[in-house]
Amino acid sequence: MLNRFASSGIAGFFMLCAMLLLTAFARAQGDPLPSWNDGAAKQAIITFVKETTTQGSPKFVPPPERIATFDQDGTLWVEYPMYSQVVYCLERVPAVVKAKPELANVEPFKTVMSGNREAMAKLTMPDLLKILAATLTGMPVDEFHAEVGKWLAAAKDHRWKKPYTELTYLPMQEVMKYLRANGYKTYIVTGGGQDFVRVYSEAVYGVPPEQVVGTVGGTNFGYDKSGKAFLTKEPKLLLNDDKAGKPQGIHLMIGRRPVAAFGNSIGDKEMLEYTQAGEGARLMMLVYHDDAKREYAYGAKSKIGNFPDALMADAKKRGWTVISMKNDWKQVFAFEKQSTTN
Amino acid sequence: MLNRFASSGIAGFFMLCAMLLLTAFARAQGDPLPSWNDGAAKQAIITFVKETTTQGSPKFVPPPERIATFDQDGTLWVEYPMYSQVVYCLERVPAVVKAKPELANVEPFKTVMSGNREAMAKLTMPDLLKILAATLTGMPVDEFHAEVGKWLAAAKDHRWKKPYTELTYLPMQEVMKYLRANGYKTYIVTGGGQDFVRVYSEAVYGVPPEQVVGTVGGTNFGYDKSGKAFLTKEPKLLLNDDKAGKPQGIHLMIGRRPVAAFGNSIGDKEMLEYTQAGEGARLMMLVYHDDAKREYAYGAKSKIGNFPDALMADAKKRGWTVISMKNDWKQVFAFEKQSTTN
Repeated sequence: MLNRFASSGIAGFFMLCAMLLLTAFARAQGDPLPSWNDGAAKQAIITFVKETTTQGSPKFVPPPERIATFDQDGTLWVEYPMYSQVVYCLERVPAVVKAKPELANVEPFKTVMSGNREAMAKLTMPDLLKILAATLTGMPVDEFHAEVGKWLAAAKDHRWKKPYTELTYLPMQEVMKYLRANGYKTYIVTGGGQDFVRVYSEAVYGVPPEQVVGTVGGTNFGYDKSGKAFLTKEPKLLLNDDKAGKPQGIHLMIGRRPVAAFGNSIGDKEMLEYTQAGEGARLMMLVYHDDAKREYAYGAKSKIGNFPDALMADAKKRGWTVISMKNDWKQVFAFEKQSTTN
Repeated sequence: MLNRFASSGIAGFFMLCAMLLLTAFARAQGDPLPSWNDGAAKQAIITFVKETTTQGSPKFVPPPERIATFDQDGTLWVEYPMYSQVVYCLERVPAVVKAKPELANVEPFKTVMSGNREAMAKLTMPDLLKILAATLTGMPVDEFHAEVGKWLAAAKDHRWKKPYTELTYLPMQEVMKYLRANGYKTYIVTGGGQDFVRVYSEAVYGVPPEQVVGTVGGTNFGYDKSGKAFLTKEPKLLLNDDKAGKPQGIHLMIGRRPVAAFGNSIGDKEMLEYTQAGEGARLMMLVYHDDAKREYAYGAKSKIGNFPDALMADAKKRGWTVISMKNDWKQVFAFEKQSTTN
């Protein structure tokens, strides 16, 4: 066969290369979603990818338009009982108070410094916003990046005693990889801080910083003592990337409508609606936390990751696929020993 | 040779593919900047690309960090005597007045409707902002996209009688392609409207919409009569992507510091400073409009594309390369017959 192509010259030879590469690729792929149980959710993903990437398919999507957006907290990694970024902010308070000792006797910093978990749980939203502003703004962008990196390397969650960056859902990592292997650009569209998530998105999800859309504030441009230009994070909100803010953030940062969108809560509804409103093939999915044993069961009544009954009804009405963590996922975390009963 | 590799199995075969592809690539490349005259500017670009992309070079930049940013107006295409987008806005006024007849007798719309060019040239900045707001906001995002597309297909500039999208500088198109062929992601970072430039950036520059950073306003999320989600452009400024706004926009939209930046006016100074402030290899260049014959000669005293003497002094002091359109460019536009005297 090599000779046959060789005789037809260099063009035939390149065609052979392409064919062999494609075959090798298809074989290496096998089951693209090994952590998923067979079922409607897994099938919906595979059907969508095949239909949108097969040349000649009526639902074919040209490569530049293959945009898939993923909420992060509760969709790609654990958000319960508290967002990792909020843990970061609370744990940064001592450093902030050390730099500004006058805050030690000012609420809400006083309560956080007391370490009284019961009192901390009662902090109001305005209190929390003060803590976020004090720990996420006011410093040079590069300094913030370094601080978050240091924290992530050391911090561990309370239940699994693992770094937060290991608490990502293996099945969702597989979906991202599968989409990318099929020419999709995967974006994180998070209510979390854009600068925060960008610190680890590449290492943890294979998503480069420029493909992270999040809640984001303004920056201030200035020069250091040696005359070098730098940016400082300012407490001025540009985009609250939650609810209607998600399609707004997608338009701002990407400028294209996604063809696939993944979320897990009421905060993702508008992103899924915006995705669905486009022409042609669309995939809208919601992760449902119904697995108290392997992760958590929460949703309808929870403040974190709120998934009200109305959202479940909406999903059914609109043809969105709800992913049951308990039933659809063979394995939740990469560090977990694969269950034989599931 | 094919047989020799075939006998060593599939691994050898893939190596052969890689070798042949590389050779074909190197040959096809030849001079990557054929529209440039030999000189310091051309050499600076080639040296930078070689140093940052050669494995083992002390200035090697890993592929994910290869970010190059380009101002658009006056750097990639003609901006003089009036920005294309301002022409668009002025030419949209009749449609706006038709939709809202009460504006016909209100300034500045009255003056624009009169067609009196002398009076129009005297419009103040607040007048102009009113026109921009009326023609760039208030409509659904998709409708704006379609309108700009229609205008671009029909409109012609006054000097060359060509579509504006043909007035791009061939030498700069070559720089973008050369950088991309060497693993750089090319971004447009423009004071112009982000939504406006995104309409044509892919077709005109090979830069996809998600790699356009520009002046950008907020959007409003809503539903149409059939319940479909859509966004409307709102007259609320999120980012003025000029001067200090350029590094701010780069941080907002890319989240990485560029290693190369190209501009042509005082509005690009902060972007070049921010680029230079990073570690390792850096390339900062400014296009200088000194070619009245083939394009225009303006700068020091011009409002459009202002290039004051202080910027020229700054460029010299900081080691930025100034590109003389007259001396460094063999050919300015693709449609031009190549000059034999240059």
